Amino acid sequence: MAIRIKAPVADAVDRLTYPPQRVLMAPGPSNIHPRVLQALTSPLLGHKDPVFLSIMDETAALLRQVFQTENRATFALPATGGSAMEAALINLLQPGDTVVIGRSGFFADRMVGIARRLRDVHVVAVDSAWGSPLDYDVLAHAVREHRPRVLAVVHGETSTGVEQPLRDLALLCREIDAYLVVDAVASLGGTSLPVDDLGLDVCYSGSQKCLSAPPGLAPMTLSDRALLAIEQRSVPVGSWYLDLILHARFWDTERIYHHTAPVLNIFALREALQLVLEEGLEARLARHRLHARALRAGLEAIGLRLFADPAHRLTPVTTVFAPPDVSAAEVRELLLCDFNIEIAGGLGEYVDRMWRIGIMGHSAQRANVMLLLSALEVALRRQGFTPHASGPAAADTVYSQ
Amino acid sequence: MAIRIKAPVADAVDRLTYPPQRVLMAPGPSNIHPRVLQALTSPLLGHKDPVFLSIMDETAALLRQVFQTENRATFALPATGGSAMEAALINLLQPGDTVVIGRSGFFADRMVGIARRLRDVHVVAVDSAWGSPLDYDVLAHAVREHRPRVLAVVHGETSTGVEQPLRDLALLCREIDAYLVVDAVASLGGTSLPVDDLGLDVCYSGSQKCLSAPPGLAPMTLSDRALLAIEQRSVPVGSWYLDLILHARFWDTERIYHHTAPVLNIFALREALQLVLEEGLEARLARHRLHARALRAGLEAIGLRLFADPAHRLTPVTTVFAPPDVSAAEVRELLLCDFNIEIAGGLGEYVDRMWRIGIMGHSAQRANVMLLLSALEVALRRQGFTPHASGPAAADTVYSQ
Repeated sequence: MAIRIKAPVADAVDRLTYPPQRVLMAPGPSNIHPRVLQALTSPLLGHKDPVFLSIMDETAALLRQVFQTENRATFALPATGGSAMEAALINLLQPGDTVVIGRSGFFADRMVGIARRLRDVHVVAVDSAWGSPLDYDVLAHAVREHRPRVLAVVHGETSTGVEQPLRDLALLCREIDAYLVVDAVASLGGTSLPVDDLGLDVCYSGSQKCLSAPPGLAPMTLSDRALLAIEQRSVPVGSWYLDLILHARFWDTERIYHHTAPVLNIFALREALQLVLEEGLEARLARHRLHARALRAGLEAIGLRLFADPAHRLTPVTTVFAPPDVSAAEVRELLLCDFNIEIAGGLGEYVDRMWRIGIMGHSAQRANVMLLLSALEVALRRQGFTPHASGPAAADTVYSQ
Repeated sequence: MAIRIKAPVADAVDRLTYPPQRVLMAPGPSNIHPRVLQALTSPLLGHKDPVFLSIMDETAALLRQVFQTENRATFALPATGGSAMEAALINLLQPGDTVVIGRSGFFADRMVGIARRLRDVHVVAVDSAWGSPLDYDVLAHAVREHRPRVLAVVHGETSTGVEQPLRDLALLCREIDAYLVVDAVASLGGTSLPVDDLGLDVCYSGSQKCLSAPPGLAPMTLSDRALLAIEQRSVPVGSWYLDLILHARFWDTERIYHHTAPVLNIFALREALQLVLEEGLEARLARHRLHARALRAGLEAIGLRLFADPAHRLTPVTTVFAPPDVSAAEVRELLLCDFNIEIAGGLGEYVDRMWRIGIMGHSAQRANVMLLLSALEVALRRQGFTPHASGPAAADTVYSQ
């Protein structure tokens, strides 16, 4: 539900000139570290400048560390995360192919929609209930029955707050020589995702979630096996802009011109990745877990009910029900307008019944969690809901452990 | 031909940490105005934040002024200029359709490549010699013979430095109910382009050329007629990411979520457009013409031969031959490494025989023209070529008129 600006006109005009400083706790974008902002204003270089080409190499090397892969074809697509979803599917699928998609939420359903636009591709959607991951046995049965060329799943479903287990999926794919595509838009940098260890063939993310770079780029990695399969297609990929061979050649030593790289966004992504590695991947994941745990303890203390299957909660996104008589949209509006905190509403049938809260990258901070819980209590009281216990106090208990 | 960094290692490392300040005079990207850089570091907002939605509205309104159109569907695609080329073609063309493409250079040839990836689309390429525009009569003949659904031409071919006249093309299209697609990547903001007056159906550009915003966005406008044609397709557009109806709905009052907008890039584009209008479109075009004239006077005084048909030279891009015994690549390398000036080499068969020089947006300044001409003289002398006369002096004559 859209939030309207209620501020007086003069203030609204001023806000257009200089946007307010928000605490970004929706499931992306997340707040940006000052060093990343600074990198964004480095002097602009041409996309063929040798200094920029070296920076591309460095960015690719950093991406390999964050994806935990040795894949040569590791780069950032010059578009948002959704473009990488489309690129993965349209590059691997050819007319006559079958794809099995684990439809576990809104974003997995988008995969189904993209695949259905392809001509002569058979799309098999395997459903899980919203809030639960896909069952391995059900998925395995579908894969063995339909023998697809591609199995595609979403690692971190931001619509439900569920983390999909990825273990054994690669083995399943190898059985029938299929390719495993994993959407890590909401998980890379916030949840463990060792690409090579898990045997993923194609994995992609977005710059603006747990990596905390500005929105606009889609980090992506392809196994040699996947790259070879794309190179050996019998019909060209339908899209020139998202032809992954062209992107691989632009990022690889060949440097074959394809597009004018979003140079400043690449500078910012490089700095964001550098920050990830300076913190250390393990320390960063532990930080995300800590703040997610504190947030959830606070929400439950207040008396709210979490949505996702407790055994499969996605660290970077917490989904929580609004109490029955509370307008989820009005609470979001109050948080945004009075406290400058952004959280998201529910998707699909949960539009006005759920909140989705991001614990992502630079936004995953103790002060943000405490502020959100305090503000949420105020907002709930205004809606006539009395918190059962203090949310901030419960979070503090987690922090003090 | 790739330029290699020759600087000592210590300096090269430093350059990676903080890129050098280049004078960008290739045909894009161009240098960025400090106000645009500042806008880029405004506080990040979520893509559903009401303040951001208002900024999108404002950006669309500014784009309409710069495109000189009243088209409701006017927005910026979240990807580079090439994505808009693909979007224009794949949204308007359906299986069974014919497209006529005026193949006047490298970028028009890219259109042909994109159209050929579409299944069951008949692609008719009408060629002009590189350096000359398409002949109206030849184009009209092809259109009347093949009765295409789409006629597509490039307004400013950066590979040749030619401006394609657009007058009468809309009338030609109306004759057979075809749609006119115009690539204005290199011309919008640097050459006259009154979209409504010319009757264009789809027109697109890039953020980083004559508009001098950072690379990464593709401004685009569609006539109601074109939008209706896309809405009435019998088969869905093959691409979800580049489905223009989805973008139109995200930018229009419906605000239907499609992607995480590259929020900071939009802030920067808005500021760049604001600067265009503060300067005034007419004054801006006059400025581009002045500096292009001065540059060309300087190049000819030096003794260099311009490439493009004199009657159809593209203001923002000057194409000029390297003298016979001079390595065009070595001169570019010297300009970049010793003077921090970027110009481009030739494309296609002109790779080491031509330079392409941008007079675009914030880069189109007298100091840049004078610096380039002086540096070029130095570089040519080192290659054994003695300038016939002083390039800067000849440019100065133009400025003093």
